[in-house]
Amino acid sequence: MIQSKGYAVKEASAPLGDFSFERREVGAKDVLIDILYCGVCHSDLHQVRNEWGNSIYPMVPGHEIVGRVKQVGSHVSRFKEGDLAGIGCFVDSCRHCRSCEDGLEQYCENNLVMTYNGYDKDGSLTYGGYSNKIVVDEKYTLKVPENLELSHVAPLLCAGITTYSPIMEWKIGQGHRVGIVGLGGLGHMAVKIAASRGADVTVLSTSPGKEQDARDLGAHNFAITKNEETMKELAETFDFIIDTVSAPHDYNMYLNLLKRDGTMILLGAPPAPAEVMAANLLFKRRRLVGSLIGGIQETQEMLDYCAEHNIVSDVEVIPMDYINEAYERMEKGDVKYRFVIDMSTL
Amino acid sequence: MIQSKGYAVKEASAPLGDFSFERREVGAKDVLIDILYCGVCHSDLHQVRNEWGNSIYPMVPGHEIVGRVKQVGSHVSRFKEGDLAGIGCFVDSCRHCRSCEDGLEQYCENNLVMTYNGYDKDGSLTYGGYSNKIVVDEKYTLKVPENLELSHVAPLLCAGITTYSPIMEWKIGQGHRVGIVGLGGLGHMAVKIAASRGADVTVLSTSPGKEQDARDLGAHNFAITKNEETMKELAETFDFIIDTVSAPHDYNMYLNLLKRDGTMILLGAPPAPAEVMAANLLFKRRRLVGSLIGGIQETQEMLDYCAEHNIVSDVEVIPMDYINEAYERMEKGDVKYRFVIDMSTL
Repeated sequence: MIQSKGYAVKEASAPLGDFSFERREVGAKDVLIDILYCGVCHSDLHQVRNEWGNSIYPMVPGHEIVGRVKQVGSHVSRFKEGDLAGIGCFVDSCRHCRSCEDGLEQYCENNLVMTYNGYDKDGSLTYGGYSNKIVVDEKYTLKVPENLELSHVAPLLCAGITTYSPIMEWKIGQGHRVGIVGLGGLGHMAVKIAASRGADVTVLSTSPGKEQDARDLGAHNFAITKNEETMKELAETFDFIIDTVSAPHDYNMYLNLLKRDGTMILLGAPPAPAEVMAANLLFKRRRLVGSLIGGIQETQEMLDYCAEHNIVSDVEVIPMDYINEAYERMEKGDVKYRFVIDMSTL
Repeated sequence: MIQSKGYAVKEASAPLGDFSFERREVGAKDVLIDILYCGVCHSDLHQVRNEWGNSIYPMVPGHEIVGRVKQVGSHVSRFKEGDLAGIGCFVDSCRHCRSCEDGLEQYCENNLVMTYNGYDKDGSLTYGGYSNKIVVDEKYTLKVPENLELSHVAPLLCAGITTYSPIMEWKIGQGHRVGIVGLGGLGHMAVKIAASRGADVTVLSTSPGKEQDARDLGAHNFAITKNEETMKELAETFDFIIDTVSAPHDYNMYLNLLKRDGTMILLGAPPAPAEVMAANLLFKRRRLVGSLIGGIQETQEMLDYCAEHNIVSDVEVIPMDYINEAYERMEKGDVKYRFVIDMSTL
């Protein structure tokens, strides 16, 4: 076994702190990665606090992982020692269901092994990227381009792919008017990727103070959703709305901004049901759809796309022992737009 | 003006009764139709009773109209005296918006003129098909095939096109598993049309007593939604669910029956919002979409398709003076599957 250390939470009400644990030995198809940076996703906070009711402790969070390959198994073909590598939200899946065969492992119908807060195929608890090393099958390991600033790349493994996947699936690009709801970790990536595809991007926000930031990120327009006059003007003007908010909120207001045949894409899953007026879908043949992270091949495409278009996340790099404070700030929305832990500080 | 008679309601609480009124003179592009049959849609009842809050009285309901052309205007090219003709839910639209130009007049962005309970372009109140004649621009008049039993054709003008349109839009057919929710006027047409397209059709019902009827209509399977065991077995097995119910109900139960990338199509608009768990859309990349009747060209295609495949509505033909009793029975779901008024009884 490989001695490892990280930061863990022991129970829902506790802060995160030092934790020692073991990773499995490097198998024939495994890659051992020395973790350099790990992004801090809002879902880390949800799970640390057991807000989804499915938490397993001790928990080492973190699923936006970049690092360097330290060792590879005898049958590994795509990586060698010294390569950059990335790990996202999952580290294995059943590999034979329809979704796995379609390269959409995130929808695996049998056994998606989450990077943390899950059980691996050998029955062991998975530990995430708030740690110094990780062992993962090369099939679930991403190649990370050399030309991007690594600390800014980490959030692409979750926030990046979660927004890239529906943008590509729905072929969002030139000629489309796209509204982005929620300017956080996901939202700021949605702005960058949608704009890079040639779409006309509007950030739909409750906070007037975010306008300059939105424009700096590449948004062409900014609208205050509390302004009824603005909402009236924007009615039936969008081809797509990408909704990144995971707090409960009103979908109907946004549905009404869609043109006929427009699509609202939900990336956040509020804990309570949202109210939807069917009439808002019927009378303009609108669509309300969901999307969840992305598959391995698609995640690789996203990393390559970002390398080519020089797209990275805007981050605030923090030391490991700042994590509890970072969570508090994240809860208040006080981060632009992702905390990333520098693992050399562990 | 053309003296006409029909059945109207004078206020929300009143029964329908005899009504005399005038139709406009036959204009250059108009067709005068002697109405033979008119279907009774549930939306007639909603509007008669002002349940949507937009009723204008006196109201002559009816938008599933078939009859014979009695007279045509000087510039009419597609119809001549003696032809069969049909009128659906609307009799005019702005003709120049994106939707009108796309042949999707039902989504007209400016001025969709409903067949009744609306205002025509000359400012006059529109009166529907519970009457002996109607004058409509030939552009909004359908050619009715001669080979189908006319009384059974009338409901195709609303129930038929409302189900046909999304089935064609979403290319539902061979290789698809389709669930139909609600076995009424819309639902029974959805079963027939989906089955005719080669789809594997399951009726999802709360009433065990409807199984034989469902199978007689062409359904391959029948499932009781109150049976938890059945619902578990059917989880993630449908490509499409067509939901024809306009009473408030739980969408989440049905969403869970969809495979990854499955689509739930809403054709009914409950008066209150429905609760939707975003997670049910996200975790299988499902879609919740709406659809509203159909455009004129599509309605013509539907009539021609039904003629070719010998598809008609199952109806109970009634005399005009039975309408108030028919409404009472309709409220209890006591009709298989559409009342159609024989206008010779007016």
